[in-house]
Amino acid sequence: MNGAESLILTALKCGVEVCFANPGTTEMPLVAALDGAARMRAVLALFEGVATGAADGYARMAERPALTLIHLGPGFANGIANLHNARRAHSPIVNVIGDHATWHLAADAPLTSDIESLARPVSAWVRKSASADAVAADTAEAIAAAMRAPGHTSTLIVPSDCQWSAAGAAAGPRAAVAPPAVPDSAVRAAAGILRRDGANTVLFMGGAALRERGLKAAARIAAACRCRLMCGTFPARVERGGAMPPVEKLPYFPEMALEALAKASSVILAGARAPVAFFGYPNMPSILIPEGCGVTTLATPEQDIALALESLADLIGAPKEAAARAANRPAARPTGALEATTIGAAIAALMPERAIVMDEAATTGLPFFDASLSAPAHTYLALTGGAIGQGLPCATGAAVACPDRRVIAFQADGSAMYTLQALWTQAREGLNVTTLLCNNRRYRILQVELARAGVTEPGPKARSLTSLGNPNLDWVALAKGMGVPGVRVETAEALSQQLERALKEPGPKLIEMII
Amino acid sequence: MNGAESLILTALKCGVEVCFANPGTTEMPLVAALDGAARMRAVLALFEGVATGAADGYARMAERPALTLIHLGPGFANGIANLHNARRAHSPIVNVIGDHATWHLAADAPLTSDIESLARPVSAWVRKSASADAVAADTAEAIAAAMRAPGHTSTLIVPSDCQWSAAGAAAGPRAAVAPPAVPDSAVRAAAGILRRDGANTVLFMGGAALRERGLKAAARIAAACRCRLMCGTFPARVERGGAMPPVEKLPYFPEMALEALAKASSVILAGARAPVAFFGYPNMPSILIPEGCGVTTLATPEQDIALALESLADLIGAPKEAAARAANRPAARPTGALEATTIGAAIAALMPERAIVMDEAATTGLPFFDASLSAPAHTYLALTGGAIGQGLPCATGAAVACPDRRVIAFQADGSAMYTLQALWTQAREGLNVTTLLCNNRRYRILQVELARAGVTEPGPKARSLTSLGNPNLDWVALAKGMGVPGVRVETAEALSQQLERALKEPGPKLIEMII
Repeated sequence: MNGAESLILTALKCGVEVCFANPGTTEMPLVAALDGAARMRAVLALFEGVATGAADGYARMAERPALTLIHLGPGFANGIANLHNARRAHSPIVNVIGDHATWHLAADAPLTSDIESLARPVSAWVRKSASADAVAADTAEAIAAAMRAPGHTSTLIVPSDCQWSAAGAAAGPRAAVAPPAVPDSAVRAAAGILRRDGANTVLFMGGAALRERGLKAAARIAAACRCRLMCGTFPARVERGGAMPPVEKLPYFPEMALEALAKASSVILAGARAPVAFFGYPNMPSILIPEGCGVTTLATPEQDIALALESLADLIGAPKEAAARAANRPAARPTGALEATTIGAAIAALMPERAIVMDEAATTGLPFFDASLSAPAHTYLALTGGAIGQGLPCATGAAVACPDRRVIAFQADGSAMYTLQALWTQAREGLNVTTLLCNNRRYRILQVELARAGVTEPGPKARSLTSLGNPNLDWVALAKGMGVPGVRVETAEALSQQLERALKEPGPKLIEMII
Repeated sequence: MNGAESLILTALKCGVEVCFANPGTTEMPLVAALDGAARMRAVLALFEGVATGAADGYARMAERPALTLIHLGPGFANGIANLHNARRAHSPIVNVIGDHATWHLAADAPLTSDIESLARPVSAWVRKSASADAVAADTAEAIAAAMRAPGHTSTLIVPSDCQWSAAGAAAGPRAAVAPPAVPDSAVRAAAGILRRDGANTVLFMGGAALRERGLKAAARIAAACRCRLMCGTFPARVERGGAMPPVEKLPYFPEMALEALAKASSVILAGARAPVAFFGYPNMPSILIPEGCGVTTLATPEQDIALALESLADLIGAPKEAAARAANRPAARPTGALEATTIGAAIAALMPERAIVMDEAATTGLPFFDASLSAPAHTYLALTGGAIGQGLPCATGAAVACPDRRVIAFQADGSAMYTLQALWTQAREGLNVTTLLCNNRRYRILQVELARAGVTEPGPKARSLTSLGNPNLDWVALAKGMGVPGVRVETAEALSQQLERALKEPGPKLIEMII
């Protein structure tokens, strides 16, 4: 067994079964080792940002890490933006980067660079294997570090001689570390607030609080105290629709977020940090808690959030189960112009049970979240770190994780351009991803931000730098180029018709919505 | 004047007139400032790797820096791979990265990251502006640092409050620092070697040695001593064809490189480092100098290379001018199958005088360099740092720098997929770039490397991870999606016909070559 084989076999022993790969010369022994491990699925991406974004989507759905297999520092650099998003999503990911042979580094060959300096900002754990014999243990530790709650990115750098040289046996999994329970005092403090002023309390949730077990406990608390359930603007994953309780999203702009919290006397944090503004604006605060509103932490992202919510529900004597919401899927499909409201309504009306919706639709996506409350039970994923180009790769990885579920990539055009190569991987793997491409031919959010910055009449360069026109992008042609069938729609009726059809067909499809 | 305006005006005062931009919210004051500076051209890229690669191509041709305007850490990360190539090319580039407002950083907003850790591996100069008043001087110093021989990347991080706050006047250029002359002893040592054993000496050249003045001096030396003129496998820029002297490229694989140098008793370095292997292979050296062959440095990349070559030519009493090579452009166009040889011959036969050829054609590109010797005078650019995805952006920037010259992007398919968004910028700017897309539907070099690693019969995963088929990419459709007209050819005759036509038409065109 060589070092590369010990890495792949260790990963399998630790429960890692998918590798999103874009390898180069320094990863050839690892590529060869994949063929010796039948249970390890290898998925080729034609750009590293697709591989890392897919690993993020996979981790959010599978709740365990995939490997990425990436080539040296520059290849890793191409994957950083989506690793940044994954870090904000607390997704477990294990990057494997091939490096030059240890004895070749001193030559400063063309592809040599400081990989660790690039890796650190997006990795909770970074190590370079010192020998072929060390690779197995390094791999097991990388996976354990990634799995530590709430989920982290590990980056393991493996020099090519450590891959091709003889190594010892594969390693087994490290002992799992359960997330620590919150102290009783935190539960009692939260209970005191809810008892005192429940109706003016916001339960601000993140991480496991937004998955089924957490949401059921939150629903009990809300039923008992009439507190509001909220989450951040860009949650990693929310179970929504069907019987899930209504959770509000904090609005994006700080003045709107402060307005949404204006009546709150207390915010209880459950797996979330206190909300902060996405950007700093003149005369606006960074922390979005209104003056006079208290903030109490029930559970940090690292703690056992679902258990904390259940303990809190029990302590305040909440009913054992909140009354299920009545199913109220809208019967009517939207008609007329294709715009944010009708698009959101169409998705809510047509998505199948257990759909996964990856929302990187930017401004066009805003009305969807409210509309989705009345849809069947589904999973909602958002752009967590603001590094655009996450949607198509993340949808790809989610589809790999959940082959029995439909994935809808609800996608802005400007963002889609960063990682459009994901479409090819969807085609190769035959993934059931329906991309709803919002073609408004502009960076609409930047035009809003320009106006907020006081540029109410932008000059020709500012207009040009925020426009995606001249020439217009033809997304049906781009999809065709990647092997994905596409269709263009210009009305809500046509969207409904095409979406309904696409959701019944196997494999990927792109619906270009001209807005 | 605010900080953003002082930055743009300072750049103009320092001779920087192009900004390759992919801005976001934290760069809005800079976007607005561009409209106040008529001479600053703003070119939008739809992915940061296009902006940085274009800045590299621009710098290689214009011999001065462009700005890139990039959004925070994750946006910068997307530009790192091509900055890595630019670093190896010694291209002067000034990155301007907007950051969160200084007072907003502590909130750790979603897009916050350690920008400096990301910037350092690809930047010779990194600074974060401390105030709006500091921005002008910071900009002037960033530009001066970029221009210091042989050319560097500077990265200036400008918090958004330093952009929007009031600032003092713009700054003027810092005093230029000329590259130091080489010591006489280095010239005398090189002369001694040439006098002793000129015919067995290799003049190994890089940087300014491969531009017109350096090459003319090298031709005089070769005429006097019959030494060989060589350059590295991936030179940043070579003037070639027409009357330029024949320069050999060192072969890629180490055993072939050692063979090419086997008869050399001495290597004289002129603006180049001693050749090193691209990758480390078992039982192969890193430094590609045969045993018993001496190495002498005439000029380092930082020194005045052209002057050193002229001094050397004078000292050995070389003729004042080497006899010009006879023009010998091949009259006949290639016929038959579309393959590396016929493609190389077609480009050499059809390229116009002063064409710029950006070669990222990987394995398919190999025969072209020899064939190009008999073409008219032109400029050859190569992938310097091995980070694939350089060709289309670099060709884009070269076309911005040289609107009166034709640019040929000779491009491998796998590499093109990394930064295909460059086609859209070519279309928007109406650039005269003809892309010759080599569609062999595989990462051919990786298949070769697999075999070199002993995997002579790759399994299904290794085959899958080195193949670009299933589905095949349709580059005519991809180009159409970006607004670039495309055509597909399958024979050498069809290539010649389409290439001749494309080189006469204004604007970009893509010719997909099915190999």
